[in-house]
Amino acid sequence: MQIKEVYKLVKDGLAGVDEQFRLLAESQDDTFPKLHEMLSHILCGRGKAVRPLLALHAGSLYHYNLQKLMYMAVASELMHIATLVHDDAIDKAGVRRGQLTINKIWGVDKAIIFGDYLFAKAAEYAVDTGSLRVVRLFSQTLEAISHGELKQGFSAFNLEQTFDEYLERITGKTASLFALATEGGAVLSEAPEESIQILKEYGQNLGIAFQIVDDILDFIGTEKELGKPVGSDLAQGTITLPSLLLLENYPEDNPVKRVFNNEGDKQKNIKEAIELLRNSPILDECYQIASDYSTKACCNLHQLPDKPSRQALFTMADYVVKRKK
Amino acid sequence: MQIKEVYKLVKDGLAGVDEQFRLLAESQDDTFPKLHEMLSHILCGRGKAVRPLLALHAGSLYHYNLQKLMYMAVASELMHIATLVHDDAIDKAGVRRGQLTINKIWGVDKAIIFGDYLFAKAAEYAVDTGSLRVVRLFSQTLEAISHGELKQGFSAFNLEQTFDEYLERITGKTASLFALATEGGAVLSEAPEESIQILKEYGQNLGIAFQIVDDILDFIGTEKELGKPVGSDLAQGTITLPSLLLLENYPEDNPVKRVFNNEGDKQKNIKEAIELLRNSPILDECYQIASDYSTKACCNLHQLPDKPSRQALFTMADYVVKRKK
Repeated sequence: MQIKEVYKLVKDGLAGVDEQFRLLAESQDDTFPKLHEMLSHILCGRGKAVRPLLALHAGSLYHYNLQKLMYMAVASELMHIATLVHDDAIDKAGVRRGQLTINKIWGVDKAIIFGDYLFAKAAEYAVDTGSLRVVRLFSQTLEAISHGELKQGFSAFNLEQTFDEYLERITGKTASLFALATEGGAVLSEAPEESIQILKEYGQNLGIAFQIVDDILDFIGTEKELGKPVGSDLAQGTITLPSLLLLENYPEDNPVKRVFNNEGDKQKNIKEAIELLRNSPILDECYQIASDYSTKACCNLHQLPDKPSRQALFTMADYVVKRKK
Repeated sequence: MQIKEVYKLVKDGLAGVDEQFRLLAESQDDTFPKLHEMLSHILCGRGKAVRPLLALHAGSLYHYNLQKLMYMAVASELMHIATLVHDDAIDKAGVRRGQLTINKIWGVDKAIIFGDYLFAKAAEYAVDTGSLRVVRLFSQTLEAISHGELKQGFSAFNLEQTFDEYLERITGKTASLFALATEGGAVLSEAPEESIQILKEYGQNLGIAFQIVDDILDFIGTEKELGKPVGSDLAQGTITLPSLLLLENYPEDNPVKRVFNNEGDKQKNIKEAIELLRNSPILDECYQIASDYSTKACCNLHQLPDKPSRQALFTMADYVVKRKK
């Protein structure tokens, strides 16, 4: 199956998500034009809709309920966007997905409150699924995300980090939301408990693979592909898999170390770290680890009903590792 | 009834709330000491627990369920604290309730994420009530609060504001959470719909009275009583009822106007505005408006069952206007 087909299979659900976003922005059109502007800006600059895709496909294997799944998809995407708005405010990032960030246009203060507003809307859509279990998953996921982000914040510019700590952080900040999308979709389609568990683990491992690739692309992508500056993680003092392995393999004079210890020209050091990774076997090693998680994600999928959406989940696992942006 | 008695009547519930907060902080003791520190800091510096009080009393008039009400009380207090953490981060406030703010100790970045973490925990406790209706109220309340805060942010340092706009803002940012506490308590005690509505309106009007008095105290309180600098609202460019009436009554040379237009010495202008209010009939006028909302809050309470908690709600309405901090 091609990735195009993955989108096409759930096009009704995705159209429903778009429609909800349009209605959400419009709801503030007359009453609060500034909020309308912020909503339009953030919702029209959306990315690949990976979380809605996951929720819709995970929810298509048993009793398909378009309405509930759509709310689930909207809620998970809104929660994702809310965390990005706060992330960008914290990182003082100017560009995301090729467009100006909320904090860049309206300032950090407004970005904080606007993020809270999006969390509230996410919660409302979660409640619209009618499932208290799903709402609980949402709250636990926000806990996991903020826990992961706090850990990342407290370990910034700290060179003494292990792979396990990295894994714990990305599981919290990224994989938990992927797992929410697949587990929530499964719960809403009344899947048997065993299948819910399989889909949850699929989401979790896929999320880890996705984040590792994100972290690789932060090194080897282009600014145009990424929609933001290359080497952002290093600049923020965040250790990711590539920098972790660079530090392990080049313990002596190391550009990552220099960035973190604030020695010499920062941009030059970042550039050197990027070059070092591109020309070392570490790049392949990183991809291999991502690929292993992607494989792990799929290992129990064959136990699920043989429907097109199951194939879509396989395709997504493949796509997540191969993507260039 | 004395205010002491109001606390005493629901001491089991309040003790349960304290216990939950202790457990919450302890849960991070070994796993994430920094988070444990943040939780201990914020939870031991709590205020008057007005929202838990409201939830517990509103929930004591029909089928009293201590466990559910306690979760409701914890959730409403956590959501309140989360919004304060974000408020302080935005205002760059250094002190709250006489102790250092989260942003002052750990920086604005950590304060943003920590606030998100508290929203997540609030949502989890809301889910623990087992009522999807209550969870929906929580999400709608966070929407109202952030909507109100955004409006406040976009109207900062704007002199062209009306009483209705002020009312809309404080209804969103304060009264909505009071109404959540009383409505949620009523829902969880299986009150009849009519009584739920009465308790919701009580909370809403009480919240407006409470915020007006807060805004008065920001002018006439002492730094010791307030636990933060006097005149903070003016310094932040936030128009409140006292400054609104000062502007109306002294349209010519006005210290509020000078603060907002950044003319002359800011601290001197703030001091002058405070003196002007203290020595004018506007102070009484502000108190009269607060008192009117407090009276309005109580106007339908007599339709509720004649239980001690009903008297407690009357006492709280009285207390809210008379308090000095």
